[in-house]
Amino acid sequence: MALKFNYYIPTKIVFGKGSLDKLAKLKLPGKKALIVTGGTSTTKLGYVDRVVNLLKEKEIESVVYNKILPNPNNVQVDEGADIIKSEGCDFIIGIGGGSSIDSAKAMSMVAANEGKCWDFISGAARMKNKPMPVVAITTTAGTGTEADQYFVITNEELNQKIGWGGEKFFPTLSIVDPDLMMTVPPKYTAYQGFDALYHSIEGYIARVANPMSDMYALKAIELIGKYLPTAVKNGADEEARAAVAMANTLSGMVEATSSTTSEHAMEHSLSAFHPELTHGAGLIMISCAYHKHFAPHIADRYVDMARALGYRDTTDPMDFVKALEQLIVDCDVADLKMSDFGIQKSDIEELADNALATGGLMFKVDRVQLTKEDVMKIYEESYK
Amino acid sequence: MALKFNYYIPTKIVFGKGSLDKLAKLKLPGKKALIVTGGTSTTKLGYVDRVVNLLKEKEIESVVYNKILPNPNNVQVDEGADIIKSEGCDFIIGIGGGSSIDSAKAMSMVAANEGKCWDFISGAARMKNKPMPVVAITTTAGTGTEADQYFVITNEELNQKIGWGGEKFFPTLSIVDPDLMMTVPPKYTAYQGFDALYHSIEGYIARVANPMSDMYALKAIELIGKYLPTAVKNGADEEARAAVAMANTLSGMVEATSSTTSEHAMEHSLSAFHPELTHGAGLIMISCAYHKHFAPHIADRYVDMARALGYRDTTDPMDFVKALEQLIVDCDVADLKMSDFGIQKSDIEELADNALATGGLMFKVDRVQLTKEDVMKIYEESYK
Repeated sequence: MALKFNYYIPTKIVFGKGSLDKLAKLKLPGKKALIVTGGTSTTKLGYVDRVVNLLKEKEIESVVYNKILPNPNNVQVDEGADIIKSEGCDFIIGIGGGSSIDSAKAMSMVAANEGKCWDFISGAARMKNKPMPVVAITTTAGTGTEADQYFVITNEELNQKIGWGGEKFFPTLSIVDPDLMMTVPPKYTAYQGFDALYHSIEGYIARVANPMSDMYALKAIELIGKYLPTAVKNGADEEARAAVAMANTLSGMVEATSSTTSEHAMEHSLSAFHPELTHGAGLIMISCAYHKHFAPHIADRYVDMARALGYRDTTDPMDFVKALEQLIVDCDVADLKMSDFGIQKSDIEELADNALATGGLMFKVDRVQLTKEDVMKIYEESYK
Repeated sequence: MALKFNYYIPTKIVFGKGSLDKLAKLKLPGKKALIVTGGTSTTKLGYVDRVVNLLKEKEIESVVYNKILPNPNNVQVDEGADIIKSEGCDFIIGIGGGSSIDSAKAMSMVAANEGKCWDFISGAARMKNKPMPVVAITTTAGTGTEADQYFVITNEELNQKIGWGGEKFFPTLSIVDPDLMMTVPPKYTAYQGFDALYHSIEGYIARVANPMSDMYALKAIELIGKYLPTAVKNGADEEARAAVAMANTLSGMVEATSSTTSEHAMEHSLSAFHPELTHGAGLIMISCAYHKHFAPHIADRYVDMARALGYRDTTDPMDFVKALEQLIVDCDVADLKMSDFGIQKSDIEELADNALATGGLMFKVDRVQLTKEDVMKIYEESYK
């Protein structure tokens, strides 16, 4: 591959056990924060209170908005943006998984401009002012959004789940503290870890992959292959939690320097119609059929990834699919079924149309172009 | 190693063949630039004119300051800063090797504040305002300063060569175009490539090394081991030039996330007393004795680096020293002698005192502390 790349990841990332407490010593980008989170674990576990108190130490005021849903949608984004304006907040802290941080990013756009969230995403409105500063505090190892410039928002009325963003949407500061991830249940540890894995896999096979994104991707794939099963089976294992958290941050850097592919578009279509379906679970369900389709066409890249997953000396790209299938078994998520989420075989054509319509850009970065028939075939092979 | 790191590299890096021409399309941080460079190759080769013309296309004015010396010193920095003030420039473009870009960084501090360059470095003056934006355009693959927050300035009156910097000194934008490096003579290609190599080696053995800096360091070491001899022997080899350029940028990222060690302090002492001695050459002369001293104490790290240099399955840390000695031979720089640069054996104690006095911080990040006797012993073993 030609040695060409653009690198731009301006986020300050403070990574490691205990790093949340460093918030008290770090320079923050404002004097009054809206803290954006889901209503449940981050509150129960006391993380939100810890953040509020750490801010108090710095004489920074805060208001908490805790209505974010697993698939964050434009309604909450607009609601949060209204609070930012009425309360006079000057920065946003997203604490939780990707849904909270992505919502914070979306609010940073809406709060700084005139218009509703979906007006910007649909193109009806343009962003005149730069978004407000965002601080990301991750409590899961999943989306990598703490190290990238993107966010994914669902519009449930339109059944659309769309990735959006740009250079101005990198968080100003991201705190990645594996201590905050110790209590994530096994199932979600797996879903989130696989989401990170697919970001790196897709970033590695995308047309826009480059030597910098490749370095992040192979390291992340190696770490997840080595540590995710342990993190799933023994959540108290600090080394495994930290390694998966680092793999996730690296996967965000892969997104920042390369791109996700049509695999993500195909999943977004599933969870757009079934918001109760966790993104990572949707990806797991379609990934084996998806990569079986691509592996023969991009053999060298799949061989590299198979090696990163432990097939040290292989030259067979299909060994990657074997390793992926085994990892899915080792992480106890091999029993996922579309039918369990109410997806009908008869929905497949509509799912394909939606993926192609809303995920167009992700199909464009594929090295091999998928037809609607290919997309339907991958859904069909994945259907259980 | 504990998975902990702070990551902050906000520079936009545009890397690859032909990237200089992208300057016309990129957002630049001001309307009038001081272009800082040495008087010779960047002008002869027409690079300065190209930059001036690319700026004109963007209706950006520029003034050229071309008096930078190989070991940049505080006198030129102050002179350039005066021009910035009198001409009303609002950003600085450093084009050339590390000396031009480091001078641009130093000027960005002096021009935005009251005081002379050495007042800030000596601590007599404090920086009240943030430095002016700097754009770095590298024409050598040596210092990695395009991707780090440091600069090295010499005070010839005081015989001090000191590294300085901080978060605010990352370039805003760095253009790394291997096309600009094709004509670097073999000897300097080697000196600069080894400088990059030592940044990664030192960053890998430093106490402050972390999983992120390790990833950059091992990749850079591998690329230099594989491609530097070709870049030296056949400067027209585009693949080798690009690979060494990437290794150099990665080495800058190592500096940004880890640190150089006492090896650099020991070289700075040599070239502080002998400004005609190229930094990379000074490092090559002391490196084998230096790493012979450390390898037994940090065996696992030296084994990793030996593997990156081609001893794929070794478990012997001294294989790293063998690989380094061989690389020095393969790059035709094994004949470097301190005596050829007028260094006397009798100078060694003074050199050691100066290294320890001015490079204190670099000694502190060593995993094994060097005594003055150790430092003198390394100089003595290196003396030819």
